[in-house]
Amino acid sequence: MKDLRIIVTGGTIDKVHDTRVEGLSFSPDGSTHIPEMLRIGRCHFPAIELLMLKDSLHFDDADRDAIAAAVTAAPEPAIVITHGTGTMGETARFLDGRVAGKTVVLTGAMRPFSLYASDGEFNLGGAVVAAQVLSPGVWGVMNGRVFPAERLNKNVEQGRFDA
Amino acid sequence: MKDLRIIVTGGTIDKVHDTRVEGLSFSPDGSTHIPEMLRIGRCHFPAIELLMLKDSLHFDDADRDAIAAAVTAAPEPAIVITHGTGTMGETARFLDGRVAGKTVVLTGAMRPFSLYASDGEFNLGGAVVAAQVLSPGVWGVMNGRVFPAERLNKNVEQGRFDA
Amino acid sequence: MKDLRIIVTGGTIDKVHDTRVEGLSFSPDGSTHIPEMLRIGRCHFPAIELLMLKDSLHFDDADRDAIAAAVTAAPEPAIVITHGTGTMGETARFLDGRVAGKTVVLTGAMRPFSLYASDGEFNLGGAVVAAQVLSPGVWGVMNGRVFPAERLNKNVEQGRFDA
Amino acid sequence: MKDLRIIVTGGTIDKVHDTRVEGLSFSPDGSTHIPEMLRIGRCHFPAIELLMLKDSLHFDDADRDAIAAAVTAAPEPAIVITHGTGTMGETARFLDGRVAGKTVVLTGAMRPFSLYASDGEFNLGGAVVAAQVLSPGVWGVMNGRVFPAERLNKNVEQGRFDA
Repeated sequence: MKDLRIIVTGGTIDKVHDTRVEGLSFSPDGSTHIPEMLRIGRCHFPAIELLMLKDSLHFDDADRDAIAAAVTAAPEPAIVITHGTGTMGETARFLDGRVAGKTVVLTGAMRPFSLYASDGEFNLGGAVVAAQVLSPGVWGVMNGRVFPAERLNKNVEQGRFDA
Repeated sequence: MKDLRIIVTGGTIDKVHDTRVEGLSFSPDGSTHIPEMLRIGRCHFPAIELLMLKDSLHFDDADRDAIAAAVTAAPEPAIVITHGTGTMGETARFLDGRVAGKTVVLTGAMRPFSLYASDGEFNLGGAVVAAQVLSPGVWGVMNGRVFPAERLNKNVEQGRFDA
Repeated sequence: MKDLRIIVTGGTIDKVHDTRVEGLSFSPDGSTHIPEMLRIGRCHFPAIELLMLKDSLHFDDADRDAIAAAVTAAPEPAIVITHGTGTMGETARFLDGRVAGKTVVLTGAMRPFSLYASDGEFNLGGAVVAAQVLSPGVWGVMNGRVFPAERLNKNVEQGRFDA
Repeated sequence: MKDLRIIVTGGTIDKVHDTRVEGLSFSPDGSTHIPEMLRIGRCHFPAIELLMLKDSLHFDDADRDAIAAAVTAAPEPAIVITHGTGTMGETARFLDGRVAGKTVVLTGAMRPFSLYASDGEFNLGGAVVAAQVLSPGVWGVMNGRVFPAERLNKNVEQGRFDA
């Protein structure tokens, strides 16, 4: 199987409940939940790179340039990017054409992993598999479906990514 | 994307804690957790077929014939089979050659879904994606890896399926 | 043991993650999680009354009058009130003196029950016991401690109720 | 409030799923879940003593002597003992009369804490409160009820402790 790297950028999948504000934010210590998710999935082989922890609604082109640079710099041919759902499609289309020769799969969650009953593990499990078997290009994997970059869009009404 | 059917056969993924025996068994009401797992994964499109709820260590050729018949009878070209980990490889090799023209992916879990921190959702998310994108044939998807039938084997020592 | 009623008024303990706003709110269908919490605690005997589902920061005297009226109307001598943490102390002091002859225990959670790793069950388990064994009066039970109404105060810095 | 010690003896509350035997056992590293349960309950004040990790069906008088000795040696006036449900009543009656001057509360769980939807936190929250407010003597707190030692009995049929 192909070597795989997971590049962490934040998004809902990595948010936690903050009792002080009674809302969601990232861990105050700047940590990511992806290693724990892989441990639960008993998936030991991916390299993990914590690039940033941001809400994707606040991403600008500098953030997306940083993601493209991380993908290019990675020695692995298969890349999973964990990403907020708000602008996952925009980032996919930004990367498309900039990261030739690699299979890049964006994923995330509608509900944080740190809350019970998140879609995060289901999505991450799909993304890890997809990155190893799909052709080079930029893809999204969410809620059981594989989307090419140009058709990766959140269905806000249904609360999922949909065909 | 291809239409997908999930055929449920039991295994650890579907076991529950039974307080009377203080051990694991299937739900007394004969139900499966796969629909709830898909709901959590926000994955609404698969057809689900509850074929049996058995520990795969107790499978015989009659059980495997029933699984092959269910795969053959399914109208969908993509099939996920949830299965115990004990003899998942044997069933994959039994099916290989008997279910031509379909993409069949076996999956399951080392730890029941009904217990916190199961690998079940990670595995199911991977299997649902794999069944839609892999070539026809019989495969296993466990713990982030895709295995052809002939190399699908549990690593008892590590508590996972491994390359 | 004394008969017990649980009066539900909302608060963090009953909040859910809402994927549309990516924040916390009450269930859109107006339901409470207290029955499920009791089922998990295998505690079958309390009567449950859903009085309101409100954030206690938005409580006014009309809300507190409604709570006092519900306590007075209850046929049971032991009452647990689930309540937001923001003004739990204010409600306790409002009720003190207005609900003579009953043992009234306020409780809630710093983290919603519907999120993994909530203090809700620990607190509810303590409140149900306290309401049966404490003398008549108004009390708070949070995070393993019993507080008389006049000393029931949230420690925002520590994220708990504290002596 | 009274100082409190929790003496850990094992039982279902502390069991984990062991993937190798596909059943329940104690953690191979000999650790207890009680500190994590208190952390989730945001209850920071109890002293914790890991005395043993045993299934209470295997307890003999030497084990119960060790528990009585630990209670007697404890400097705190309030003691919670986490214990298997199988012989919780027997241990309570054994301790009754041997541990004068202290409030001793036995508790445990029908379903392990490490599995989702355990009654362990509800029970522990009740026991921690009861140990601080009940008179000296030996008690059991399970599933929302307080039982004197002589009436502490598991209802196997209902899967709970019941009046």
